[in-house]
Amino acid sequence: MIAANNPSLKSWITVPENSDFPIQNLPFGIFKIGNGTPRAGVAIGKQVLDLAAVEDAGLFSDQNLPTGTFSKEILNDFMSLGKPTWTATRNRISELLRSENQEIQGNDGLRAKAIVSQADVVMVMPMRVGDYTDFYASKEHATNVGTMFRDPNNALLPNWLHIPVGYHGRASSVVISGTPLHRPKGQTKTDDAEVPGFGPCRLLDFELEMGFVIGTGNKLGHRIKVENAEDHIFGMVVFNDWSARDIQKWEYVPLGPFLGKNFGSSISPWIVTMDALEPFRVADTPKEKDILPYLQTSGKHNFDIKLQAAIQTEKGDEKVVSNSNYKYMYWSMAQMIAHHTVNGCDLNPGDLLATGTISGPTPDSYGSMLEISWKGTKPIQMPDGTERRFIADGDIVIMRGHCEKDGVRIGFGEVTGKVLPALD
Amino acid sequence: MIAANNPSLKSWITVPENSDFPIQNLPFGIFKIGNGTPRAGVAIGKQVLDLAAVEDAGLFSDQNLPTGTFSKEILNDFMSLGKPTWTATRNRISELLRSENQEIQGNDGLRAKAIVSQADVVMVMPMRVGDYTDFYASKEHATNVGTMFRDPNNALLPNWLHIPVGYHGRASSVVISGTPLHRPKGQTKTDDAEVPGFGPCRLLDFELEMGFVIGTGNKLGHRIKVENAEDHIFGMVVFNDWSARDIQKWEYVPLGPFLGKNFGSSISPWIVTMDALEPFRVADTPKEKDILPYLQTSGKHNFDIKLQAAIQTEKGDEKVVSNSNYKYMYWSMAQMIAHHTVNGCDLNPGDLLATGTISGPTPDSYGSMLEISWKGTKPIQMPDGTERRFIADGDIVIMRGHCEKDGVRIGFGEVTGKVLPALD
Repeated sequence: MIAANNPSLKSWITVPENSDFPIQNLPFGIFKIGNGTPRAGVAIGKQVLDLAAVEDAGLFSDQNLPTGTFSKEILNDFMSLGKPTWTATRNRISELLRSENQEIQGNDGLRAKAIVSQADVVMVMPMRVGDYTDFYASKEHATNVGTMFRDPNNALLPNWLHIPVGYHGRASSVVISGTPLHRPKGQTKTDDAEVPGFGPCRLLDFELEMGFVIGTGNKLGHRIKVENAEDHIFGMVVFNDWSARDIQKWEYVPLGPFLGKNFGSSISPWIVTMDALEPFRVADTPKEKDILPYLQTSGKHNFDIKLQAAIQTEKGDEKVVSNSNYKYMYWSMAQMIAHHTVNGCDLNPGDLLATGTISGPTPDSYGSMLEISWKGTKPIQMPDGTERRFIADGDIVIMRGHCEKDGVRIGFGEVTGKVLPALD
Repeated sequence: MIAANNPSLKSWITVPENSDFPIQNLPFGIFKIGNGTPRAGVAIGKQVLDLAAVEDAGLFSDQNLPTGTFSKEILNDFMSLGKPTWTATRNRISELLRSENQEIQGNDGLRAKAIVSQADVVMVMPMRVGDYTDFYASKEHATNVGTMFRDPNNALLPNWLHIPVGYHGRASSVVISGTPLHRPKGQTKTDDAEVPGFGPCRLLDFELEMGFVIGTGNKLGHRIKVENAEDHIFGMVVFNDWSARDIQKWEYVPLGPFLGKNFGSSISPWIVTMDALEPFRVADTPKEKDILPYLQTSGKHNFDIKLQAAIQTEKGDEKVVSNSNYKYMYWSMAQMIAHHTVNGCDLNPGDLLATGTISGPTPDSYGSMLEISWKGTKPIQMPDGTERRFIADGDIVIMRGHCEKDGVRIGFGEVTGKVLPALD
């Protein structure tokens, strides 16, 4: 067991019951206070440990970090240092936060500087996303979409069981949780219309996904082998891949989703490390067809991460519309990375890969309104008496994720986003 | 007429006949000498004007440029200053290089520092590409592909005449001219095979495209209107969108090209400004269907840019395999930008947009081997007695572009790339 994951560890910082951020988690993020300079922090209970302050105080002097690593406005440089450094740094942070440790706890001046209430900070993008790739790696989701739009008897396309199908998304419009998005406008065509029309999207949707952030990449021309791929992952976030279904439907042949997706994608602010997730490994989904050697793995590569999507209406009522789980994934992150790089495509620190919608086997675990309302044919009732087929203006979509085992809860916090009316 | 475009202008720097880089061009790039620091330059004849040296000497003091603008290793910050600044800076450079001007010419020390032979420099990526988007905007190309792979009677998909169809490409693997690329490996499946196989790409192709670089972008949520769109373009390059046809064919449904494209895309090193291209405007291709108002333009938005693709075999023989022209484009750059941002997607300085393969109406003007050899059914004869259906290991693909009018030739130089054997 990784020492920092020991369920018996306690921190001198109060961690409320059911907090996503006990001492066994220690996720990394970038925060700012007021108009201050963004810098790196780790979430603990309801607090943030200011890593720049800890570094300035010399408490990372054994870690061989380049000077000012945590004073940077993004984590890309820290990510590029590699997994041994991430692990050592997390272990050191764990040590500093343990009940018995006095290095910060016993230093009034440093403690006042280094411990900040989460209520007083604004979280910003933790990394510069060089490139963002979205996969389509949940079999239930691909099957549901194929059933609705193509043929229930041939829902999966021929390549799906052989390839972790993916496509390039838009890096510039990946935004931090809490960023409101305007309903996109665009060109759409209904089946019975002669010609396309233009206007605000009518079928605005979320996709309940997880993102994983590349820590160390590969050189152009050289691949990352599937057996080493997990070591390249800095950590995971909950990811909302906002989707404009009507725009997507008209535009997406033959080159894939474009304006139906690139108006915004939202990530949760705290990157949970793979070390923290280690205790929650579960068996892979059995492969239904033989896969090529470059994708074959042994061991466990799924994780038991409970995922939830909820819609909060303008009146403030929240309704949970999906309870899914990362463990339903058909293709693993290791397989996605191995596939992505098998042709020599280079990944770089801070790149974001996402899973695609994670749907479970039952309707209450479907990860998008498209599936939940089955193309709008099964509206869901909201607490305020309204109903939803897709997302309405003023709605806030909230996604959460957490693992739980042996009394330890490792959570991701939330990714939220409010839908504002279309502009103009 | 823009003063710097006057055909009668002469420079005190010798410009050989048929040079791509007369004083009327003045394209921007980033160069380095040996292991020196990359910095900005402008091509003139067979020389580079070192803009950092010119700036250091105070000769841009009237331009209100932030200090060190041209000492940066990328042009993104200069691009972000906006079109009036680009134009004023080009005008000033034109002035400094004119026969009668003595500010550099008459200053031996500065002249020795500021004028470098192109033979002595290495060109590097002129910008950090935040996001790269590829379009599919040549009707001849889309028709050829649709004819080969779908239905000759319905070659264009229903959206094609209404939308400048595009997709997100990989920004990280956009490389500068001269960068060799290994033949990609990947998963492919022939029509008669039961299951997919793995190995080096068998159908390696180029795509003759042009890229255009965004200078100033837009805020997320706000669009760029078609009538202002050209002012956001810093300039153009010749672009080779390398394509692995067999990988692409198996992977691309339903989410578009991925590993068939993202192993590398090559750009020519000198960014030719829109000001320099101004004299070469020609009429748009007439639209065959009514298009929505957000895409409608008046005036001329095509450019008469002669494009050429050649293959040089290992024996050194070169064969020109395509003579195309940018003027064949169906959708304009302004339309591509307006479409890309109509949903609020943000563009940023240094973003690269590409046209898609530019094919003309006749087989000698097709812009990819897929079309030239018509899916491999019509091999072309090479000077060394071999034949080509697609690109062979050791081949160098060379693309060139230039405009010519009133005795002035505005060229792009070349984008070249050698194909190395697959690794392992």
